[in-house]
Amino acid sequence: MNILVLVGGGTASGKTYVINEVCKHIGTDNVCHLSIDDYYKDQSNIPLEERRKQNYDHPKAFDWKLINSQLLDLKNNKSILKPTYDYTIHTRSEITELVEPKKLIIVEGIMALVNKNVRSLADLTIFINATRERRLLRRLSRDQVERKRTFDSIVEQYFTTVQPMYEEIIGPSSYYADILVNNDGYDNRSIEVLASVLKALLNGEIKPTKN
Amino acid sequence: MNILVLVGGGTASGKTYVINEVCKHIGTDNVCHLSIDDYYKDQSNIPLEERRKQNYDHPKAFDWKLINSQLLDLKNNKSILKPTYDYTIHTRSEITELVEPKKLIIVEGIMALVNKNVRSLADLTIFINATRERRLLRRLSRDQVERKRTFDSIVEQYFTTVQPMYEEIIGPSSYYADILVNNDGYDNRSIEVLASVLKALLNGEIKPTKN
Repeated sequence: MNILVLVGGGTASGKTYVINEVCKHIGTDNVCHLSIDDYYKDQSNIPLEERRKQNYDHPKAFDWKLINSQLLDLKNNKSILKPTYDYTIHTRSEITELVEPKKLIIVEGIMALVNKNVRSLADLTIFINATRERRLLRRLSRDQVERKRTFDSIVEQYFTTVQPMYEEIIGPSSYYADILVNNDGYDNRSIEVLASVLKALLNGEIKPTKN
Repeated sequence: MNILVLVGGGTASGKTYVINEVCKHIGTDNVCHLSIDDYYKDQSNIPLEERRKQNYDHPKAFDWKLINSQLLDLKNNKSILKPTYDYTIHTRSEITELVEPKKLIIVEGIMALVNKNVRSLADLTIFINATRERRLLRRLSRDQVERKRTFDSIVEQYFTTVQPMYEEIIGPSSYYADILVNNDGYDNRSIEVLASVLKALLNGEIKPTKN
């Protein structure tokens, strides 16, 4: 069985950054890196205006059945055809991506730790902490640049769904993390620490399953 | 320089248990293990009745100057004469203990992460999480058995000082942790994870200083 690591954390807590830096330490040959965001439900049967109003920060926005079966395939060393998501039209795109299994499978997303079935597949669970103001600032900056959204629309979405769902679902899911790190700009020790933990998992020093 | 690791966390979060288990994994030859609790201020000049009423969950109850200088000595490979504390009379006892420096110095206590000067000596900072109800139950059990206190006196102290100081000082100090682990009975992955991190510090895979 390959090793599955789940990485949760609030929006813009730096999950992708931390994982990319960790992968530089441990080498990318043994690692594949997926995002739960690619598994937003297909909404092509819903009008575009309706799609815009959905709550994208709730677990029900994700296709857990597909996540579960594809992660199980990767653990069992089978390749998958991963869906991709088109944020401009708020639904699954027609493109799928071939993902080859690797010894270490890292899956990240705000919801990575919220689903009990998916947690039960995990060999290690990680939560990335960052303060609320740091996350809001990063999100404002990222969504304006990368997703061409306006300041006002980002702030409105933040307080309508992002922040309440953090309080209700994402923050509490940190309870299920084996390890949490702070990624608030205080220092970068978290990357070295996580790299050594994942190396220990890869070389069997940490038992590859807890279930 | 020897390596200093600070381990904070609320009362009865399982700090001592976790560290003892971690030391079983990494071997005790290279490790010395101190408690900040031994550095409660000497109160022999205060009447016993007054001592009972002190707030023992506030940073000002600790002798930070002595902590700082003794940790610096241990880092510089000098032995120390550590004070000890007598909980029955709420003051420093007359006994001191010789502590020989080791390659890895682990210092634990609810206040381990609250003092900026002491943090600046640390090579790694850890916070042990456990839920409030788990901690209260463990504290009730421990203080009745080990410290012969009554249920009522433990509960009164808990809500008078222990819990408010957790909210104000100890919980927020988790911000300064490089790594946090959950120790709530969910599983024991935290021990394996911390053991691998401390091994990586000892063998230089994690840089021994961040300052």
